[in-house]
Amino acid sequence: MAFIDHIRRCNAYAPEDYVPWSIDGRIAGYVRHELRPVLAGYAGLFVDDGALALDPRHTDIEARSAALQEIAERLHRAGIVRNLNGERYALSIAGEQVATLERGASAVLGIETSGCHVNGFVRRADGPHLWISRRAEGRPYPGKLDNFVAGGQPAGLSVLDNRIQECGEAAGVPPDLARQARPVGLVSYVMATEPGMGGDGLNRHLLYCFDLELPADFRPTPVDGEVAEFRLLPAVEVGAIVESGRSFKFNCALVVIDFLIRHGLIAPDYPDYAALCQGVRRGPQVDH
Amino acid sequence: MAFIDHIRRCNAYAPEDYVPWSIDGRIAGYVRHELRPVLAGYAGLFVDDGALALDPRHTDIEARSAALQEIAERLHRAGIVRNLNGERYALSIAGEQVATLERGASAVLGIETSGCHVNGFVRRADGPHLWISRRAEGRPYPGKLDNFVAGGQPAGLSVLDNRIQECGEAAGVPPDLARQARPVGLVSYVMATEPGMGGDGLNRHLLYCFDLELPADFRPTPVDGEVAEFRLLPAVEVGAIVESGRSFKFNCALVVIDFLIRHGLIAPDYPDYAALCQGVRRGPQVDH
Repeated sequence: MAFIDHIRRCNAYAPEDYVPWSIDGRIAGYVRHELRPVLAGYAGLFVDDGALALDPRHTDIEARSAALQEIAERLHRAGIVRNLNGERYALSIAGEQVATLERGASAVLGIETSGCHVNGFVRRADGPHLWISRRAEGRPYPGKLDNFVAGGQPAGLSVLDNRIQECGEAAGVPPDLARQARPVGLVSYVMATEPGMGGDGLNRHLLYCFDLELPADFRPTPVDGEVAEFRLLPAVEVGAIVESGRSFKFNCALVVIDFLIRHGLIAPDYPDYAALCQGVRRGPQVDH
Repeated sequence: MAFIDHIRRCNAYAPEDYVPWSIDGRIAGYVRHELRPVLAGYAGLFVDDGALALDPRHTDIEARSAALQEIAERLHRAGIVRNLNGERYALSIAGEQVATLERGASAVLGIETSGCHVNGFVRRADGPHLWISRRAEGRPYPGKLDNFVAGGQPAGLSVLDNRIQECGEAAGVPPDLARQARPVGLVSYVMATEPGMGGDGLNRHLLYCFDLELPADFRPTPVDGEVAEFRLLPAVEVGAIVESGRSFKFNCALVVIDFLIRHGLIAPDYPDYAALCQGVRRGPQVDH
C-alpha cells in the first residue's frame, strides 16, 4: 500500500452521494441523501422547503446546540448514529462557531471537525525516531497503531491548550514539556465513512499537527486507557509500516506521511512527491 | 496585506479564460483563448481539429522539443513571449517528461514548471533568523525581496542536485554545506500571469522547498549576479515584511509563509490558519 494509497483512502467520497444542510443560510454539513427525509421528519428541529436546514427558530448557539443534541439522540435511538460519548465538538462555519454537536454524530451530519496530533520524536545520529502508540482493545479502532498523542478537538478549548491536555492524558507528558510541542501545520481530508466509523456519513477533518522533541530518556505512560502501549522506532521504519498496509488508524497514516515530508525522509526524488505534499492538505478553503 | 492575500494573489485566475492543449492525447498546458488561433496557424507545429494539440507527427522528446522551440521563437518574434533565455524546462505530464520547453515560453503555454527555494536560517535563542536576498536591478523582478536561494528547475537535473547548484551559484554556499539543505515539502499554485511576468498566460508552479541551517558566522556571497544583497532578519520580522505588502517577489512570499507555519511562528490560533496551510499547496493531484 503506497503512501499515495493512504491519501486516496482518506479522500475517497462521491460528492453526489451527499446533500448539504444549513444553519442561518450557510452550509453547516453534508448528509447522505437517504438521511434527508429522516431529518426532514424531525419537526421543530429540521426544515426542508427545497433545501435542508436547521429550523431557523433556533437562533443562538445554545438553542442550536440543544436542537442538535436532540437530533443526535434521535439518530442514536434510530441506530443511525452508533455511539454517543457526551463530548461536544464545535460546529463552525468559515471559522465562526455557530453551535456544538455531540462528537458521535459529527460524521453522520458531516460537519467539519478538528483533531490534535502530536509527533513525539527523539533526535538520533541515524535520524529521527518516532514514538508511536497502539490503541487499546475495547476502544474505537482497537489495536490500530496511532501517533504519539492524538485526540479530538472539543468545543471551548483552544488547539494549543488541547495539545497540552492530550499530551498529559494520553502519554503522561508533563505540561512544561508538552508546551514545547511546536505547531507545524495541518493535515486535512474529506472522506466517506467506512464501516465501523460510527455511522454512515462524511468525515471532514482538520488535524492540527505538532512536533515534540523528547529527551532520549523520556518514557511515555498510558494514562487515560486509550493507549495499550508505546514504542520508539526509527521514523523511516514507521514509514515502512505505513507503506506495508493498514496497521495505522486511517488518518494517523497521513500525519506520519506529513512528518516524513517535513523531515526530508520522503524527498523530491520520490515519484509521488508533489501529489503527497498536496494530498495531505486536501480541501481548499480559498476560492479562485 | 494579510498572509491570506498572498495566497489569493498566487491563485488568482479564471479557468474559463484558458483552453487546454495536448501532447499525444494528454493535457500538456493551458493557453489564453486569444492564443488558440495563433497556435493553430503554425502549420506543422500545432493542429486544431476541435481541440488544440501539438502536431502528432512529433512523436518523441527530441522532435517535440524542437517543435516547441520553434513555437517559442515564433511567439517571441510576435511579441507574445517577452524574453527567451535559452534555459530549458522539462515539460512533464503526470510525472513523465514528454518534451522540453524554453523557460521564457512556459507561462504563455501554461505548462507546469518547478523551482527550488532554499530557506537559509540560523537558530538563535530568540527564534530562527532567515537569510533573505534582494534581487538585482536589471533582472526579472528587480529590487524585490527573495528567499535565500531560489531558482528554476531546468530539464536534466534532479531537484536535489539543483538545490546544491543553486546554493553555490546564488549565494556561494559550498557543496558540502548545501547538501545539508533538507527537503521539507513544496508550495504550489495556479495563477494568471500579471503584467511584467513575461507574457500573458498561466503560472502553474511547484516550488520545492528546503531548510538549510547555517552556522552563525556564515556569510553568503552573491555569485551569479541575480542577487544585489543578502540580509539576516528574525523570521517573525520577515513575516511582518510579507504582511506589509508586496516587497517580496510574489511566490517567495508563499515560501516564507510555509516556513513560518512549519516553524510554529504562524500557529493554530491565527484566524486563517487552516486556509493558509491548505493555501500554500493548491492544485490537488489526486482525484476523488
